[in-house]
Amino acid sequence: MVTNIIKEISIKEFLALPETKPASEYLNGKIIQKPMPKGKHSIIQGELIIALNTFFKIDLIARAFPELRCTFGNRSIVPDISVFQLERIPRDENGEIVDNFEIAPDWVIEILSPDQSSARVTKNILHCLNNGTKLGWLIHPNDRSVLVYYPERQPAFFESNTDVLPVPDFAKSFELTLENLFDWLKL
Amino acid sequence: MVTNIIKEISIKEFLALPETKPASEYLNGKIIQKPMPKGKHSIIQGELIIALNTFFKIDLIARAFPELRCTFGNRSIVPDISVFQLERIPRDENGEIVDNFEIAPDWVIEILSPDQSSARVTKNILHCLNNGTKLGWLIHPNDRSVLVYYPERQPAFFESNTDVLPVPDFAKSFELTLENLFDWLKL
Repeated sequence: MVTNIIKEISIKEFLALPETKPASEYLNGKIIQKPMPKGKHSIIQGELIIALNTFFKIDLIARAFPELRCTFGNRSIVPDISVFQLERIPRDENGEIVDNFEIAPDWVIEILSPDQSSARVTKNILHCLNNGTKLGWLIHPNDRSVLVYYPERQPAFFESNTDVLPVPDFAKSFELTLENLFDWLKL
Repeated sequence: MVTNIIKEISIKEFLALPETKPASEYLNGKIIQKPMPKGKHSIIQGELIIALNTFFKIDLIARAFPELRCTFGNRSIVPDISVFQLERIPRDENGEIVDNFEIAPDWVIEILSPDQSSARVTKNILHCLNNGTKLGWLIHPNDRSVLVYYPERQPAFFESNTDVLPVPDFAKSFELTLENLFDWLKL
């Protein structure tokens, strides 16, 4: 669905615009606004952020960010969840996290909304993989399945309750089954 | 969308059932009916079949089939277009094409319908690649883009009018740009 395309502008012009809600992304000269998150999307995003950050804080290895703008490779995207290893998180002179991330996440997670184009989301995941991201998850809440994208490898499809989802090496003891993931929908 | 699931049966029981319209597919014990094809889907499927078979007939190298049931790896799927190299097309004792194909196509092409789950279609393409298929196209008419799936490799995304779509080696001089493909929608 090529909805919400405004006009062709440069990435510099795009970044100077005020942020929108939901966030807008910049791809190939076009601005595309993300769909308004709905129930299933929101629950999974929220619970996954908690699960990931609870795990990451044990050994201070990484951090998961919801809706973080990442600008790299002439695109500006806002993944549902971006995970960065701690040493890659850009900091300012005071040692504090910067506002503008100009690198690809180490791990990108997208949750498909019913009215969202899977083409656009997949394109964003492939753009990440082409710029150093180690793993991409595309969660399909309505299909109870997860497509996992790897750099330089064929994607894999997970749909059994007992499947343990693959994670990047730096998070290798983070275990989440499809059942854990989709049970969050039951609250 | 996990719609149109009937009940859990064996693949043998499934294959004994009468065919439906649109065709039904068998995956992991479940029967899922394909969506009713609409305008954009139908035009692209029809024109692509003509373009491919016109090209293949020059050197008798392959054949493109619309809506052909292919049963392999404990699944029974009906890709929008299945391409088989001529020597792989199963024949009966009279040298005629058989009715039941129990092998994976050499090249599989799916055209996403607006109400179709991209998860299910992607799953079918990956099932093909895991069983010997050399290339998979997932055409998104509403997004004017094509996702190309390769065995053992990261998928690639095509969205520029001048992009020439990758084809399997056996069809290497078949040239189709995105512009050619989506111009068919203009009739």
